[in-house]
Formats: sequence, C-alpha cells, structure tokens
Amino acid sequence: MLGKYLDAVRENSPLIHNITNYVTVNDCANILIACGASPIMSDDCGEVEDITSICGGLNINIGTLNKDTIPVMFLAGKKANEIGHPVILDPVGAGASTLRTETAKRLLDEVRFSVIRGNTSEIKTLALGAGATKGVDADVADAVTEETLKNVIAFAQAFSKNTGAVIAITGAIDIVANEKNAFVIRNGHPMMAKITGSGCMLTALTAAFITANPENVFESTASAICAMGLCGEKAFVTMERNNAGNSSYRNYLIDEMFMLTARELDEGAKYKLV
Amino acid sequence: MLGKYLDAVRENSPLIHNITNYVTVNDCANILIACGASPIMSDDCGEVEDITSICGGLNINIGTLNKDTIPVMFLAGKKANEIGHPVILDPVGAGASTLRTETAKRLLDEVRFSVIRGNTSEIKTLALGAGATKGVDADVADAVTEETLKNVIAFAQAFSKNTGAVIAITGAIDIVANEKNAFVIRNGHPMMAKITGSGCMLTALTAAFITANPENVFESTASAICAMGLCGEKAFVTMERNNAGNSSYRNYLIDEMFMLTARELDEGAKYKLV
Amino acid sequence: MLGKYLDAVRENSPLIHNITNYVTVNDCANILIACGASPIMSDDCGEVEDITSICGGLNINIGTLNKDTIPVMFLAGKKANEIGHPVILDPVGAGASTLRTETAKRLLDEVRFSVIRGNTSEIKTLALGAGATKGVDADVADAVTEETLKNVIAFAQAFSKNTGAVIAITGAIDIVANEKNAFVIRNGHPMMAKITGSGCMLTALTAAFITANPENVFESTASAICAMGLCGEKAFVTMERNNAGNSSYRNYLIDEMFMLTARELDEGAKYKLV
Repeated sequence: MLGKYLDAVRENSPLIHNITNYVTVNDCANILIACGASPIMSDDCGEVEDITSICGGLNINIGTLNKDTIPVMFLAGKKANEIGHPVILDPVGAGASTLRTETAKRLLDEVRFSVIRGNTSEIKTLALGAGATKGVDADVADAVTEETLKNVIAFAQAFSKNTGAVIAITGAIDIVANEKNAFVIRNGHPMMAKITGSGCMLTALTAAFITANPENVFESTASAICAMGLCGEKAFVTMERNNAGNSSYRNYLIDEMFMLTARELDEGAKYKLV
Repeated sequence: MLGKYLDAVRENSPLIHNITNYVTVNDCANILIACGASPIMSDDCGEVEDITSICGGLNINIGTLNKDTIPVMFLAGKKANEIGHPVILDPVGAGASTLRTETAKRLLDEVRFSVIRGNTSEIKTLALGAGATKGVDADVADAVTEETLKNVIAFAQAFSKNTGAVIAITGAIDIVANEKNAFVIRNGHPMMAKITGSGCMLTALTAAFITANPENVFESTASAICAMGLCGEKAFVTMERNNAGNSSYRNYLIDEMFMLTARELDEGAKYKLV
Repeated sequence: MLGKYLDAVRENSPLIHNITNYVTVNDCANILIACGASPIMSDDCGEVEDITSICGGLNINIGTLNKDTIPVMFLAGKKANEIGHPVILDPVGAGASTLRTETAKRLLDEVRFSVIRGNTSEIKTLALGAGATKGVDADVADAVTEETLKNVIAFAQAFSKNTGAVIAITGAIDIVANEKNAFVIRNGHPMMAKITGSGCMLTALTAAFITANPENVFESTASAICAMGLCGEKAFVTMERNNAGNSSYRNYLIDEMFMLTARELDEGAKYKLV
C-alpha cells in the first residue's frame, strides 16, 4: 500500500528547497536524488523566495542555525505557505539551546507546517517546553517503548491538533500521527543511530514524499519513514557482509534508497495503522 | 594526446583556491587530491587575497552564494587576475534566481575568466539572459543532442569570443569551445547525474588542469572533461559489480580519478576536435 | 596500555562541541560517532555558550574561519575554560594567511587549551611566527624525520611549557609532547595525506579521548593518534584489496575506527615514550 507513494516521487521528480545544516547537507542531497527527487540548497535572504517559488516543497532543518539563516527560514516558510507548497520542519537539537528552542517555536507560530519530524526529546521540547535534549540525540528517558507507546501516540495526536501538522516522532519505534490516527512503524536498525544525518536525511526524504503526494501527506510521511527504515535494515546486511563500519553504512543506506522499488517497500514495510 | 595534461597536474601539484558551495565541498576537495592537486577553501574577506596569492588557480562556484561570500568572489577574482592566475567560474543555478543570474553576470563583467563551465541552461542564461533553469539541473529543452550540436557549438564559440574564456557546456554530450575550435566529447555516463556534485567536481578538476597547463587552457579543459567522463564510465562498472547505488558511485568516481593514468586517459578519451 | 583510553570513550560517550570548517565537518561527526562519542556542531554567537555548557569538550578548528565564527571561537573557548571543560585547537592553515595566524595566536592568548594539534608548519607558525605553510599541508622543509626528531621534540616541549597545552605534531612521524616527556608515534600510512580531513578528524577524535580521560590528557592524546594511525594502516589494506582510491579510503578509515577494539589498539600501537 505504501509503495505507490515512492512511485509518485519517481514519476513527479519534485524539486525540494532545503535550508539545512552544513554537517549532513551532502547526504540530504544524495538521498533526495536516490528517491527520485531533486535537491536545491539556498539560504540567502536575497534569493530565497525566488528559489522557494521554483521548487515544489520546502525542508527547514535548524541543525546549524545562525543569525543569517534564521530570517531566511521565516522568509522561505511564509513564501511556501503563500503559494501552497508543503513545508516540513526538523527541529534538530530543540532543547539543547534557548536559540534552537525559541526559533523552532517561533517557526511554529509564523509558518504552517505540513509535517514536523524529530526525535522524542525534540518534539516534547516543542510541545511541552520541557525536554532534556542531549545534543542532537534523543534522551534515553524519552525513548518510545512498548510501555510508553499509547501515551506517545496520544501526545503526538494532541500536538498534531495544535499545529495542524502531521507529527513524526522517530526512534526505535516510529510514530506518525495526525489528529485522529497514527502509524506505528517498526522498520529500521539501531545502526542508523551510528551515523550522522539519519534524521536529517529522513526529513529531506519526507519532504520529497509529501511534495509528490500532496493529497496524502499522512500516508506518504509514513511511507517515507518505512522506506528509510527498510533501507537501514538492508544496508546493515551489506555492512555485515563487507565487514564495514558506520561510514560505509551511510553510503549503503543511500544506495538502498536508490535501488528501492515500490514492490519491495510494500513487502518490507512493517507498520500498523491505529 | 590528452593524457599529458593529467601528468602535468600530478607533477606540478597545483594548489587550488576554492570559493564554493557547502553541499559538495568535500567531494571537490577529494577529487582535487585524487587528480594530484591540493585544495584550500577560504571565503572570508579578511584573508581571501592572501589565500589567492599563495595558490596557483581559483575556482569560483556560486552554488550556495550569500551576501558574505559574494564580495569575496570579486575580491579573489580580481586578485587572481592581477597576479595572472587562471580563474574558472561555475555558475550553479544561474537562471534559478535573480541573485544568481545577476551575480554571475557581474562576475563576468568584473573578473576575467579562463574557463566558464556549466550546463546548457546555465550558460544560456549567462549568454542570452533567457534560460529556463530548473534548480541546478539543465532543463530538458536545453539538452545538447545530435540535432542541436552544431548550433550549440556556434553559440559556445560566440560566447567564448565575447568573454575571452574557454566555454565548457557539459551534459550527455560535452562541448569545449574557444573562439575558433571546439572539442565534442562523448565520455561520461548518465549515472553522473544521479549524484550531487558531478558538475562542481568537474569544475574543481578543470581548475587543477588549467593551472598545471597554463599554456594549454583549451586542451587541458577538454582533458579534464574526458578524464571525469571516463572515470564516470569506470565507476559505473564498479557500481554494477557491487550492486551499489548513487552514494557509493560518488566514491567510486573519485576513486577512479585517483587511479587514472595518462595512458588510460589517452586510450579512453572519446572526443573530436572540430 | 593505550587501549583503555578508547574504552573510556566508549563507556562515557562524551558529547563534543565542534566549531569547525564546512569542508570536513561530516567526516568529523562520523569519526566521533565511530569512536563512541557524540558530535554537535554549533557556531552562532546566540547559542554557543549554551551548547558548550551541555557538552563535555570543545574542538576549535579554524579551517574555514570567518568574521562570524571567529568571535564564536572565543566565546565558546572562554566558556569551556570557565566550566573546566577541555579545549583542543586545530590551527588549520596557520601561516597561510595573516587572519589565520593572528586568530590562532589570539586564541592562544585568551583561551587555555588542553591540546594543540597541527602539522609541523602550523605549529612552527604559532610558536615561532615563522613557517612556510603551503595551504593546509605541511611544507616539505618542515617534515619530521629521524634526523630532525630530537630537535622537534625539544621544540614541542618548549611550546608545551609556554602554552600549558599538550602539543601534538603529526605527520609521517607523530610527536605528542608535554613539558617533560614525549610520545614518538610511528603508526599511520601515507595514504592518510591523500584525503581531505585526516587532520581535522584526528583533532576531533582527540577531543573525544581527552574529554573521556580528563586525568590523562597526555596519554589519551597519544592513544587517539595511535588509534587513528592504526586505522589508517588497516584501511589501506582494505583499499588495496578492493582496488579502490582515496574516497573509499576515507570511508574505510572511519569504518576501522568504528570497529577498533582496545585490544587491537594495545597490540597495534607503535610508540615510544621518551
């Protein structure tokens, strides 16, 4: 069922505008190409509205935000809203500094997001103001487990209601929630936490999926997350076979996205709609 | 015939100053090392003239230009002109925003370039003010085909006459033109369009080739483009053998440049001088 | 003996704040994860003290310094000093521009460093004001050889006395010196100079080692350098076996760090304490 959203990305080849951090930007570009989309990066006030306009969707990632790029995020976000393009937020490290937390919150106030994707700590920080973000990784206390699953879903649905956005909380178990429903996704591999950029790449990928599937933002977000997790599983097999480590794993992960078919995604996706 | 220009890079080990985008900068650095050159990246007004002066050549790439780096491009370009170092321009995304188009045009007005390398859309935007750049990829309507080849060559030669630069228009078929002659190059592989940075790496590589071969800018530009295309062909064989995807392909491409010999380049280069 | 310092990194999983260049930042992040640490990158005045405070150690690398990030280096460095966190300096390209040389020297004046790591040219520039830095590579005349070894050790010890920092001079032979002693390390492979970022990654790695081993800054710096060199040796074997080049070598190097055990480090470390 979720494979068709990948096919739509390959058919429509959406152009995605990324305002993102300089740490994982190359991986984000390559995974966008791998799934069938095209990336463009642009973060100067003098051109950002032009770029947003020629693209199909916008990905805002605050991973290395600074005084010059913050206003650009608002300019681009508002422009995308104005012309009806989907916008996704990755609140990297929200909770790790006041600047990150406040910027992410202001973005929620002034820009309408189609999807917000983060780890539990980041999303909790945005929703509750609390949170104990340890750098850019989720705090152990915030892990989504079988025990906390129901509560996390309810929390995500409430936050979806407040923001109007689909909420994607990713970790060992992934939750994709709108106001009423939720996907619980069990694809993925712990190795994905052993490279930089798994989260950033997933957000970029989701931007491509929702841009190519504007009528199905909820489902195509789940599709992107299953696809990423499935590629993470396959990449681990290659890593083990090649006796490799985390840097090669990053390449294998993107490679798998390049090779992934809709059929494989249909067969390999492990999710429950609740 | 073109292999000797690669040997000159390996012998002279030119130091190349790159003012380039943060998306593909690491790949540009590694391909410069792969071909025998050394990279340095520097884009602050406070040091850029110092850095230009200790280098042999300058690579200006506007892929993620911004208000701080634009003046740096002019400073460095003028300094390089003053001391007689070759300068190459990669007008990434010219046509995608007014800022990119205007900046590239102003650079052409104020800096003397040895080579300008881009896809057809970008070069047409610079030469004609028209162009339908879709992000950083060439527009389909602008593709160089057997049918349009003669016209594109004439167009490139006219633009070379106007600018004094060797013009390199790269795509499925590559054109390298000066006022009177042109290389038509048929190396390369469609897979090269499935990674970010093929174009940026090619421009960086060309900077190394022309810096090491100052008396043969036209020929050494063609040599760089044949070398890149040949490596793209070989990397595809490795990718197929390893059942890999685009991220590994990027590594294989740079690996092939590291291993490429002058003799292989002589034997594998597919070009016609017209 | 040196393996236990790697184990401490894996056990403590220190969070390292990196103010570093945009060329090799992704590799620095992945090697930090590979050794068991966590990376965070942040270089805006508005948050840098927050980020320094939640981290365990700070890595300052001036590889692409600019007018916005220079003040951030001072803010973060002073904050880290105030709260007793270790700070490491990588004076990339000191000597290549007045801005780099002056910034590095001012940093030495105003921030207390636990370790300073660079190539001979960079360290000589800082200590003597002389130096003939050719870009970001050490000048040939500055190479540490068997003949110059004694002098370099004495020089490093004197500089350690002046700065209070452990001095790491890396190249074909590596020297780690405090006021009275020195490790002479003979791990590594010439291939490490054929990728961008070997030095940057080593500095980031050292930041993780000294943060996890605050009582043994001298020894754990030597451990990080042996570990990196050993991984460089192993990665070369993989590169040869796979008939690969420098881009794959970069991945193999990080992969080896991911797989390295304390026992392998104990057995493979080639050093002498003098």
